[in-house]
Amino acid sequence: MNPKKIEKVLARLARGDITIAEALEILRTLPYDDMKFAKIDHHRELRKGIPEAIYSPGKTERQVLGIAKRVLERGDEAVFTRVTPATFAKMKNELGAKVRYYPEARITTVGVSRRKPLGKVLVVTAGTSDIPVAEEAAVTCELLGCKVKGLYDVGVAGMHRLTANLRQFDEADVIIVLAGMEGALPSVVAGLTNKPVIAVPTSVGYGANFEGMAALLGMLSSCSSGIGVVNIDNGFGAGALAAVIVKNKYAV
Amino acid sequence: MNPKKIEKVLARLARGDITIAEALEILRTLPYDDMKFAKIDHHRELRKGIPEAIYSPGKTERQVLGIAKRVLERGDEAVFTRVTPATFAKMKNELGAKVRYYPEARITTVGVSRRKPLGKVLVVTAGTSDIPVAEEAAVTCELLGCKVKGLYDVGVAGMHRLTANLRQFDEADVIIVLAGMEGALPSVVAGLTNKPVIAVPTSVGYGANFEGMAALLGMLSSCSSGIGVVNIDNGFGAGALAAVIVKNKYAV
Amino acid sequence: MNPKKIEKVLARLARGDITIAEALEILRTLPYDDMKFAKIDHHRELRKGIPEAIYSPGKTERQVLGIAKRVLERGDEAVFTRVTPATFAKMKNELGAKVRYYPEARITTVGVSRRKPLGKVLVVTAGTSDIPVAEEAAVTCELLGCKVKGLYDVGVAGMHRLTANLRQFDEADVIIVLAGMEGALPSVVAGLTNKPVIAVPTSVGYGANFEGMAALLGMLSSCSSGIGVVNIDNGFGAGALAAVIVKNKYAV
Amino acid sequence: MNPKKIEKVLARLARGDITIAEALEILRTLPYDDMKFAKIDHHRELRKGIPEAIYSPGKTERQVLGIAKRVLERGDEAVFTRVTPATFAKMKNELGAKVRYYPEARITTVGVSRRKPLGKVLVVTAGTSDIPVAEEAAVTCELLGCKVKGLYDVGVAGMHRLTANLRQFDEADVIIVLAGMEGALPSVVAGLTNKPVIAVPTSVGYGANFEGMAALLGMLSSCSSGIGVVNIDNGFGAGALAAVIVKNKYAV
Amino acid sequence: MNPKKIEKVLARLARGDITIAEALEILRTLPYDDMKFAKIDHHRELRKGIPEAIYSPGKTERQVLGIAKRVLERGDEAVFTRVTPATFAKMKNELGAKVRYYPEARITTVGVSRRKPLGKVLVVTAGTSDIPVAEEAAVTCELLGCKVKGLYDVGVAGMHRLTANLRQFDEADVIIVLAGMEGALPSVVAGLTNKPVIAVPTSVGYGANFEGMAALLGMLSSCSSGIGVVNIDNGFGAGALAAVIVKNKYAV
Amino acid sequence: MNPKKIEKVLARLARGDITIAEALEILRTLPYDDMKFAKIDHHRELRKGIPEAIYSPGKTERQVLGIAKRVLERGDEAVFTRVTPATFAKMKNELGAKVRYYPEARITTVGVSRRKPLGKVLVVTAGTSDIPVAEEAAVTCELLGCKVKGLYDVGVAGMHRLTANLRQFDEADVIIVLAGMEGALPSVVAGLTNKPVIAVPTSVGYGANFEGMAALLGMLSSCSSGIGVVNIDNGFGAGALAAVIVKNKYAV
Amino acid sequence: MNPKKIEKVLARLARGDITIAEALEILRTLPYDDMKFAKIDHHRELRKGIPEAIYSPGKTERQVLGIAKRVLERGDEAVFTRVTPATFAKMKNELGAKVRYYPEARITTVGVSRRKPLGKVLVVTAGTSDIPVAEEAAVTCELLGCKVKGLYDVGVAGMHRLTANLRQFDEADVIIVLAGMEGALPSVVAGLTNKPVIAVPTSVGYGANFEGMAALLGMLSSCSSGIGVVNIDNGFGAGALAAVIVKNKYAV
Amino acid sequence: MNPKKIEKVLARLARGDITIAEALEILRTLPYDDMKFAKIDHHRELRKGIPEAIYSPGKTERQVLGIAKRVLERGDEAVFTRVTPATFAKMKNELGAKVRYYPEARITTVGVSRRKPLGKVLVVTAGTSDIPVAEEAAVTCELLGCKVKGLYDVGVAGMHRLTANLRQFDEADVIIVLAGMEGALPSVVAGLTNKPVIAVPTSVGYGANFEGMAALLGMLSSCSSGIGVVNIDNGFGAGALAAVIVKNKYAV
Repeated sequence: MNPKKIEKVLARLARGDITIAEALEILRTLPYDDMKFAKIDHHRELRKGIPEAIYSPGKTERQVLGIAKRVLERGDEAVFTRVTPATFAKMKNELGAKVRYYPEARITTVGVSRRKPLGKVLVVTAGTSDIPVAEEAAVTCELLGCKVKGLYDVGVAGMHRLTANLRQFDEADVIIVLAGMEGALPSVVAGLTNKPVIAVPTSVGYGANFEGMAALLGMLSSCSSGIGVVNIDNGFGAGALAAVIVKNKYAV
Repeated sequence: MNPKKIEKVLARLARGDITIAEALEILRTLPYDDMKFAKIDHHRELRKGIPEAIYSPGKTERQVLGIAKRVLERGDEAVFTRVTPATFAKMKNELGAKVRYYPEARITTVGVSRRKPLGKVLVVTAGTSDIPVAEEAAVTCELLGCKVKGLYDVGVAGMHRLTANLRQFDEADVIIVLAGMEGALPSVVAGLTNKPVIAVPTSVGYGANFEGMAALLGMLSSCSSGIGVVNIDNGFGAGALAAVIVKNKYAV
Repeated sequence: MNPKKIEKVLARLARGDITIAEALEILRTLPYDDMKFAKIDHHRELRKGIPEAIYSPGKTERQVLGIAKRVLERGDEAVFTRVTPATFAKMKNELGAKVRYYPEARITTVGVSRRKPLGKVLVVTAGTSDIPVAEEAAVTCELLGCKVKGLYDVGVAGMHRLTANLRQFDEADVIIVLAGMEGALPSVVAGLTNKPVIAVPTSVGYGANFEGMAALLGMLSSCSSGIGVVNIDNGFGAGALAAVIVKNKYAV
Repeated sequence: MNPKKIEKVLARLARGDITIAEALEILRTLPYDDMKFAKIDHHRELRKGIPEAIYSPGKTERQVLGIAKRVLERGDEAVFTRVTPATFAKMKNELGAKVRYYPEARITTVGVSRRKPLGKVLVVTAGTSDIPVAEEAAVTCELLGCKVKGLYDVGVAGMHRLTANLRQFDEADVIIVLAGMEGALPSVVAGLTNKPVIAVPTSVGYGANFEGMAALLGMLSSCSSGIGVVNIDNGFGAGALAAVIVKNKYAV
Repeated sequence: MNPKKIEKVLARLARGDITIAEALEILRTLPYDDMKFAKIDHHRELRKGIPEAIYSPGKTERQVLGIAKRVLERGDEAVFTRVTPATFAKMKNELGAKVRYYPEARITTVGVSRRKPLGKVLVVTAGTSDIPVAEEAAVTCELLGCKVKGLYDVGVAGMHRLTANLRQFDEADVIIVLAGMEGALPSVVAGLTNKPVIAVPTSVGYGANFEGMAALLGMLSSCSSGIGVVNIDNGFGAGALAAVIVKNKYAV
Repeated sequence: MNPKKIEKVLARLARGDITIAEALEILRTLPYDDMKFAKIDHHRELRKGIPEAIYSPGKTERQVLGIAKRVLERGDEAVFTRVTPATFAKMKNELGAKVRYYPEARITTVGVSRRKPLGKVLVVTAGTSDIPVAEEAAVTCELLGCKVKGLYDVGVAGMHRLTANLRQFDEADVIIVLAGMEGALPSVVAGLTNKPVIAVPTSVGYGANFEGMAALLGMLSSCSSGIGVVNIDNGFGAGALAAVIVKNKYAV
Repeated sequence: MNPKKIEKVLARLARGDITIAEALEILRTLPYDDMKFAKIDHHRELRKGIPEAIYSPGKTERQVLGIAKRVLERGDEAVFTRVTPATFAKMKNELGAKVRYYPEARITTVGVSRRKPLGKVLVVTAGTSDIPVAEEAAVTCELLGCKVKGLYDVGVAGMHRLTANLRQFDEADVIIVLAGMEGALPSVVAGLTNKPVIAVPTSVGYGANFEGMAALLGMLSSCSSGIGVVNIDNGFGAGALAAVIVKNKYAV
Repeated sequence: MNPKKIEKVLARLARGDITIAEALEILRTLPYDDMKFAKIDHHRELRKGIPEAIYSPGKTERQVLGIAKRVLERGDEAVFTRVTPATFAKMKNELGAKVRYYPEARITTVGVSRRKPLGKVLVVTAGTSDIPVAEEAAVTCELLGCKVKGLYDVGVAGMHRLTANLRQFDEADVIIVLAGMEGALPSVVAGLTNKPVIAVPTSVGYGANFEGMAALLGMLSSCSSGIGVVNIDNGFGAGALAAVIVKNKYAV
């Protein structure tokens, strides 16, 4: 439940549009909404400044739909990650226009309204295969209120592709760098800039890459400073961290 | 070489205090100083806004001393991490007052002058045994120009120790959270605040902790958002990332 | 073969309903029933106080059916875990009413009669995706004669969901806590209660979670005391251990 | 701070022995005592029914002594694990008679008074080399108020040593089983008894044992039910869990 | 090519049935038959006393058929392991009666004639799910000329199933023991007998079993002596080693 | 863009066939071609002497087609690895004759013209199942301008198959050795020759082979010298390294 | 307790040298001797045909001495492995002539009398550094009654050293092959012989060898058949298995 | 034994300086010299063109001295790696002037005479701490007859240090690149050059670097082509491979 909504509830009460009992009922279900199989954390936006995020894999379609419906009923917002097109189709069908899908990013939003963008996040990938995770990061940043720019396929095997784009680093508030295989790009980027770098290992690669393990260990062992690492393929996590940094910079 | 020093060189040239040849010689050795066994990156401060950091283990005492001496000769700054008291004693003996030691943090600075502190970093530990790494982070933040406050031994086995200190979270610009064993503290902290959280797994623990591996994997797999992870026991890395975020917030 | 059945055999002998040879034949097949591909441990109930449990994956449908049939022929009881709906359908078809299915828990019981419930087990999950394993644990507890209550989706990213339910901990005899991702919940729960905590890592998560490894290592490395850990996704094992503790508490 | 002590404080207040302000001051420092480098959890005994336990490795001697001193000043109790003889000697020297050492278990107690023992815990080891960890478990149980009996060196390579002692299993409330190498003993024991089994993998072994990893994985993968596993070499954890189970059984 | 066949070639030459050139051609293709994609080791039977074994996965059906055909053309013998029913059907169709299939063991033989059995191998499994690998071992032993007896589902969770069958151990020359999960059975068996034990970890289990890793590490770390371990699920390897031991015992 | 093409551009300019502006436009797009989702490195041939290689898995068919089309438009060359027959069919359909497929090697070339072969590379496999990776290496070598010869299925279990082919080693400039399972072949080959050996672990095997890990670790730990190792199943990498060594030998 | 000793006890009883009560007392302490910290398995020789073996690391000197003393008091035999020279010196000092030390093998025997050797074991090493483990295997074989011959430093990097010694393989009953690094030697040996091969990975090597892991995985993944593997550096286990095979061959 | 020496033996025989029997005796001990604990491979130089290399750790000082002495007696050559100063001192003392030590590289040569250098090897390190391994590589190259140049401390955190030295790449025949931590340097170097790159992961780093594992996996997963990887810290292996490539290039 976003702070403005609480204000509105109180205003409606003040105007006599709702009774005290009704206001209480709305506020009472804070801090969370108990659906037995899920306790939706409407309070999260108050604490974290971002809508609740729901990781979809491992949940039944029935559960995903149930959560989405409840969120809409309360005029609230939620971001569902790793949503398949099939699940989205069902959500669209049942819940209609307030559900939006970002297919490359595999994100579905429910009730999320656009925020006025603050700050700039640059999303950089080492290769083309890293793009789906990069899009998850980029869409997350946008949903949470940041401007985003992408710079894709500039891996270390052809450094001139990177150095030709250095100026973009200076214009960013935060740089998200995604790489699979040996995961060397964040070290190189962090060596060239004084902006915070969020490193995202991706599972692109094979054999001794061990599904992103090589990239992950490499990023954690980086010889450059100013790097924070997130989980393998965790585009959402990178986007959310970037947004938190940006919000803390521009929020008064 | 810090930007002000370049300005000074140019000013001295303008005033006729040095010849063009002399100015050239000073600037020529940019971007790095070649000592064969090390290429000191005087350029780093220009690019990154922070002094060069030298990881001491694996370097001979002769190499550490040589680098430190060259740094001083150029009126430059450097931070040496994981320095033993014995090595510091030799540095002190040969190089004198410009070398300072932070024993709990195992950091030696060479020629580093105090910066006017900007922003606030809160350093939180799960246990008492995490303190040496926490001090490495805290001293790094201070050296790089941030105010730092410590909140130690508030691990998840006794949550009331943490919740009694929630107000400190709101006052911080960045929160560094250190934990060994299961490494659960960053998840809990990030669930309670909207500040960027830098998670540092420590090697505190034994058996299935695998020298910090359990804490590292746990932090990367966190169910909370807004967390960037650094290497096991990497207090310096956490401090440097925190400083980068703070500087990007307050720098005009 | 449950102790009451042995008593009955002996009683029937005493009453002359069966001959000594017949009684002997029944008892002789104790302690196990040799089907070549399986040796059904009818003795287990005597030793352990719980029906034999059969882990279904890796067994052919023919073998599962064969074991179930033999159990029924002897008027005995068995619990089959990880049973697919398809296999259950075949069992139901061939064996009829004495076969019952708990679809969310993936458990099929054969000949199991309800026990009068003793004690209370609280089953807590960090997320919605942990529910199938939680249900396996809950159904196991119920089958083995415990009352069970579920408290789902109270993970550490939103601690208020947990603390709002603390009173339930005091009313339980044993608490089963399931969590995937970083697996932090058992540490927090065990820090808040003086009841035995059984921690179940689940394979919910991705990347550095390594199919439940992160949660498993975290639970084993917990900074809280009073925790026993079972295998990843081992809902049956957690339920059986809880039931053993409860039975030892209430059994005279 | 144990509940009786709170009662006493209140009684002294009621009797006028102390002023309200004094009582408040004593109670105010609940729930923990902030020593900057450690926050002693005097509240733990209230919540968990057991004294605070302090894991000594990674703490400086100065910190260990400081914590112990504060505990004594408050008339409180604490258990220090993995204490070296040298550290104990210093503690004894500074703090005197209220400090006791259990050398084989490497445990030091501070201010701990004997509890009237409840229930019986049987501690079983596969080999002689497992005894130090077994003693840590046994001493922990005793300190937390259980009767303890040891059955050592009955590993599966000579099953007759185990089966000759089966009767002891029936007399126990909880059985702690320690094994290194392949860690098979808990499976065998749990197959023979209906008591809760706490399995402790030890780091006894070499090569493919990987410092207890083989035993740990084996115990988690056990084909027997009724087993909860603790960390490698975690005698304290096993003892504490056993005590929690026993207390929940006998406590009215 | 088996030694008798070489003798025959020489005899035919001696009788003038074939010319020297023809004999040479036959012997020349020794020691192996080059099919480009495979070099069939007809020499293996001479060196090892057992037919060539071909591991089928990773080979195309065309390659498997080609090898089988060439083996038959030369009147030779080969054992194909891990053959799917579909591949066998194709082999049967093209090559006819000399191809035989052992479906549970997933073995296809080509041109293999029964040997007079020597010695006795006992194949023991911990569970029912281990049977496919056990059958691979048993069929291998039989094909290589040993008598085999199976003792299935006698795992350590119900030791009485094992001890009731101890006499069978004394009658065996070699004992193959298969177990998944914690893999404890070989330790127990080796502790009870003075026969060589071949331990086969199987991939039966889940979670911390890591596809047979727990059983493998356990067997290698066994506290019993007289055990040799083979790869996870390697029934063929166990059977071949057993046969080699038996042949070395009974061969004059 | 290969150096000859640049020469041609310049020549056309000199002849007045194109204007300076046109020449500039052609050269300007060096060093890479920005397609947003991919930055094609036309510069690579200049730097590395080999056409750009594109790893296909993880790229959408649309992306693969787009890259291939752009390459052809520029009269350039590219090698696509791990291409499925389905993707090739689409490429063929849209792009026509300039696309060629090597099915066993899973390589598709776009616009690649035959080079006059230099030097000899010998590709050796331990088994038949290693052939697909070997073919990837062999085709790569041929495409990059080397003569290639294959020696397949000469693993260490039948050393005579290897030693019968020793002469081929003397005739090679570089030897690529592929092996799965224990990966012992490169050690043996490198012990017998003074040619550079490129070792390729393959994922052939099961269980303790861990998808090529055993072979990889073995090759890295080899007791022979003169071996460089590439990633598991990385036939392309081995072929490219071999070609680089050959080109550096014969290039004037 | 060896069978002959039991016979003697009975004979003495028959002759009236001891009373029934005395005989009973001697036999009663069978099957094991309870020293609290150790249960010496005198029964092992009856079951296994070999003296009890005691792994010394992890036992205190006091425990080792206590076990050795008790063994001697009973006129029994034991083999202590991994004994340091210091511990042996103490044993020698206290227990005298019946204690013998094999320094290279790090074995101490207590009361072990020479057996008439049966069969031949060939112990082969890949390198010189493998010799200490090889000696542990060789001495174990000799103590358990086998003739042993050593063939050291014949690793695969120089195959001619191995092939020059092939004849020795034919003369052996069992071949123990030790190798560190990539552990390829057992595969090669097993490919050349029809004798049972016991493979011993050693921890010789560094880096990607991971303390013997590479050799271990390689041996388990061997492409040759007829190999049983023991734990890393487990010379005793290899020797004991060899002896068991030899005894089963020659024992009537 | 180097080929020239064999020629000399034959020449001496031709001149009548030695008898046939004497010549035979010298040649007879080819291909190796059996010292029981070591079989010195004098044949290696013939096969591989390089002197025998002996890895010293794990060998006793007595063994190292014995091998060195025998090498000198035969007028042969050997390279001992990882030799401690103490061992070298003993060698020098006993064997005198023909023993030379390269302390930074930890290499001792015995009887090695300088070869006329062929070709150029460039040895590049990411950091100062990589220098000991780099020196092992460099000295090996020189001993095996290559010119060597070092370019140290040019890691990816300060790319300008690398790019300032690009010209050196063009002048080299082979480039050895050493890096610890994330091991990114070989990818960057191989992206910039068309020379063969030998990548050496070093164990420089901590935590998630896992003693060089991160660097190793990263190098194997490199997105650049033309890279062969050797074991962690294997400077000798890298140097030997470089020398083999150089020799094959320049040898007629």
